[in-house]
Amino acid sequence: MAWNGWGDPARAAPLPEPVRGLLHDLLGVRAPGTPPLSLAEVKVAAPRLPGEALTALAQAVGDAQVRADAETRIRHTRGKSTPDLLRMRAGQVDDAPDAVVLPASHDEVLAVLRICAQLRIAVVPFGGGTSVVGGLSPDLGPDGAGFAGVVALDLRRLDALVELDPVSRTATLQPGLRAPAAEALLRERGFTLGHFPQSYEWASIGGFAAARSSGQASAGYGRFDEMVVGLTVATPQGTLDLGRAPRSAAGPDLRQLVLGSEGAFGVITSVTVRVRPAPEATAYEGWRFPSFEVGADALRRLAQDGPLPTVLRLSDETETAIGLARPDEIGAGGASGCLAIVGFEGTPADVAHRQAEVGRVLREAGGEELGAEPGKGWEHGRYNAPYLRDSLLEAGAFAETLETAAFWSKIPALYDAVRRALTDTLTAGGTPPVVMCHISHVYPAGASLYFTVVSAQGADAVTHWLRAKRAAGDAIVAAGGTISHHHGVGTDHRPWYATEIGLLAVDVLHAVKERLDPAGILNPGVLLPTPR
Amino acid sequence: MAWNGWGDPARAAPLPEPVRGLLHDLLGVRAPGTPPLSLAEVKVAAPRLPGEALTALAQAVGDAQVRADAETRIRHTRGKSTPDLLRMRAGQVDDAPDAVVLPASHDEVLAVLRICAQLRIAVVPFGGGTSVVGGLSPDLGPDGAGFAGVVALDLRRLDALVELDPVSRTATLQPGLRAPAAEALLRERGFTLGHFPQSYEWASIGGFAAARSSGQASAGYGRFDEMVVGLTVATPQGTLDLGRAPRSAAGPDLRQLVLGSEGAFGVITSVTVRVRPAPEATAYEGWRFPSFEVGADALRRLAQDGPLPTVLRLSDETETAIGLARPDEIGAGGASGCLAIVGFEGTPADVAHRQAEVGRVLREAGGEELGAEPGKGWEHGRYNAPYLRDSLLEAGAFAETLETAAFWSKIPALYDAVRRALTDTLTAGGTPPVVMCHISHVYPAGASLYFTVVSAQGADAVTHWLRAKRAAGDAIVAAGGTISHHHGVGTDHRPWYATEIGLLAVDVLHAVKERLDPAGILNPGVLLPTPR
Repeated sequence: MAWNGWGDPARAAPLPEPVRGLLHDLLGVRAPGTPPLSLAEVKVAAPRLPGEALTALAQAVGDAQVRADAETRIRHTRGKSTPDLLRMRAGQVDDAPDAVVLPASHDEVLAVLRICAQLRIAVVPFGGGTSVVGGLSPDLGPDGAGFAGVVALDLRRLDALVELDPVSRTATLQPGLRAPAAEALLRERGFTLGHFPQSYEWASIGGFAAARSSGQASAGYGRFDEMVVGLTVATPQGTLDLGRAPRSAAGPDLRQLVLGSEGAFGVITSVTVRVRPAPEATAYEGWRFPSFEVGADALRRLAQDGPLPTVLRLSDETETAIGLARPDEIGAGGASGCLAIVGFEGTPADVAHRQAEVGRVLREAGGEELGAEPGKGWEHGRYNAPYLRDSLLEAGAFAETLETAAFWSKIPALYDAVRRALTDTLTAGGTPPVVMCHISHVYPAGASLYFTVVSAQGADAVTHWLRAKRAAGDAIVAAGGTISHHHGVGTDHRPWYATEIGLLAVDVLHAVKERLDPAGILNPGVLLPTPR
Repeated sequence: MAWNGWGDPARAAPLPEPVRGLLHDLLGVRAPGTPPLSLAEVKVAAPRLPGEALTALAQAVGDAQVRADAETRIRHTRGKSTPDLLRMRAGQVDDAPDAVVLPASHDEVLAVLRICAQLRIAVVPFGGGTSVVGGLSPDLGPDGAGFAGVVALDLRRLDALVELDPVSRTATLQPGLRAPAAEALLRERGFTLGHFPQSYEWASIGGFAAARSSGQASAGYGRFDEMVVGLTVATPQGTLDLGRAPRSAAGPDLRQLVLGSEGAFGVITSVTVRVRPAPEATAYEGWRFPSFEVGADALRRLAQDGPLPTVLRLSDETETAIGLARPDEIGAGGASGCLAIVGFEGTPADVAHRQAEVGRVLREAGGEELGAEPGKGWEHGRYNAPYLRDSLLEAGAFAETLETAAFWSKIPALYDAVRRALTDTLTAGGTPPVVMCHISHVYPAGASLYFTVVSAQGADAVTHWLRAKRAAGDAIVAAGGTISHHHGVGTDHRPWYATEIGLLAVDVLHAVKERLDPAGILNPGVLLPTPR
């Protein structure tokens, strides 16, 4: 993983010349971005962990698994939001962890937590490092609030498939497994997890659970939190071991308190998930709708009355025009309309049946079939957007995403409000952005909206963006949406999150945290404000 | 609702003579049960609420809505487990609430909770009064632990359909709505909730949510907790208002902390649920499998690979033989095999398609189609079992149920262990019981087992039963099942619940309760042990 960008640096590709022209003409990009510092040029402050901490941690996990070299610390600094990357490119690593600790078992995690609680060292659980909401950026409070340092708890050595139960179709996975490794282990045994978020190539099983991830095939396989049937969690106060049945009426579903807790309550050390037979057949196809509204209604019909395809997304007019490289159609209600990607995975008979039935519904709802070509294009590029972002940053543009979800009846107003907030704020502070959107996930009662913003980078891109992001967050809350459908809360979304759930619910979460983590060492300031 | 039995007393029917013969021959029932006392014969102690409490409560909800007459208090005493009924028939009402309060709004509930918190009066939220696990039997602790009394908070006046959102297909319902009334309000508007537990005729929307109910059509419509997308909760510390989208990554899903909280954290004052178009067609049919094992495998295939019918249940050999009144086949692996009820609700096309596909799977899996007759029989009697229980008690038999769920790979051993525990314990203390079982709910990863026990009542039926129930609970935990799939925890299941989730999780729940209910007035001892 690139230390200051996304993914495998070898896969980064410069923007094609026509796209550069587009940036110039459409966004007013006049100059390339500031070239990033090299890793060697980045200066990281001396680690401040007390010697007794390093000794105790080394005893717990082994000498070689406590690392404090500059490169390892830099590579565990923050996540992969665009502000994260811009700061990293500028060499800002004042918030690098003081050490990186790599436990290899649940018991080693428990031991590390005990040590850190005793010495008041903040612990940031680190899976794939792909958070885009500040989930790896603890907020220690004013002047470090008495913390003796920060440790990144890298879970990569917890990377086993612990158990596969083919009768119950469940698999117990360790949290440090990257998604492709988990998928490979399951495929060898004839199964798939079916979880393919855009971060797929780098993200980890533990991160999926901790942040309630949702993947591109969620219509067919479900959200990650819906796949989870069991969890083991190491906390400073001991172990939680949850999930004796798929469903139960024995009290609140405490798995749902761990899912989405983003490392603030404990470290997830194993996840038992539903698995499915690896699909024998796949088919991805494109559909065109005359407008986003008509397309959204079509998706709603599938979500409410079925049948559901495995993959289902609908781009608005702008995203469709940009995707087809027809910028002249932006805002013009052009002939391209709105592109939907509809995919099927399963047995050949199931794929054929659903494809026919879904096609019937979509045609009735005003869709026009575009065949397999757009589906192939989507499949080919499904994990590429974050690479493209790096190239845009290089070229002097700024690209970022945000997302929300709401009940269907609120979706149109939510869509308008967020687009307006982003467009107005960014235009006021610079040049007009391009704001694209797609419906990325559907449910019977509602859907998610995923926005991508591209604009000129300008002088102070981060500040400029944060103003727009603030306006978008306010618009989401005002329009009745949730502040995140699948990115999470992190430190970035805390203010809106508190508004969304209300102060009494925040109090409840604090009560849970205080019971599990009385020293307040776990990802301080992530999810919940640090108590003042 | 009968005060000392189930449902409408007019619907009670004496057992047919052949069944009486069966009880005599099969279970050794030699004498009818002790006749119940009449309501007038039951003596209830004087209410002990302080005068200032009655005044304050009357100010909050109106004079007429605070009731302390004997009949109202008796009718709000405990729930409807068989021990509850036997005690009630014997006139044991020492745990009658001191008063019954009937608020008409969220704000009135808040006001009642504030008064009760201030004066340390225990509050038992009361919907349909149908708990079978002691959910309406607070445990105040030794000598009443300083409580000034107990109030039953009857929610029947909170009985509105607040909002129907036909676009999102959601309905906001108040908690005191009985299920048939909720269903009628929705049907008038073309929708159904699709929630039909055996308690359907009497149970309430709030109770469904508080106890994570699951209905007979859960294969098609889902569990009640899966239908809930929003909740409003009144607590002594204020209001929780949860659910801005069907799904979210904004932190833990706090709806899942309220669902299953059984009144211990707050009083649910509104529930927003998914609704569906009222079905245009229904079809219920019977299938025969040569054994419970073969039938269970068939159900698993449907749960894992689909398609799912709307109703799906499978009786074991004993339940099948009893249902067909062929007691000679019990234990003999008789020709009747195992009966499955398979039902479909939806559009005519959907019903026809699923019926054909399900039929294909079931035939392949060893099932033999029995046609619509068994389906009609099931439909006719689907809410009758609790009435039958009353008649059995009259006749000198004892009948009770318990249920669990587990992952599929654990189902066979769980089934054996619970049957053995019940049979051995009841046989040792009296005469051999009949223990029947059916799979009542299926999931891709597992299923529930629902046991019905009928035995001779004997001298001290409650003590005798509690011994068997203890053995069954221990067997469930040992075999890896959950202590309840849909009845809940109440006070009856607390010990196993604590074992199931572990002491750290119990601590977490206590922390939540202390934050929402610092005076500990909400259903004390239900779900969680009262802190000592």
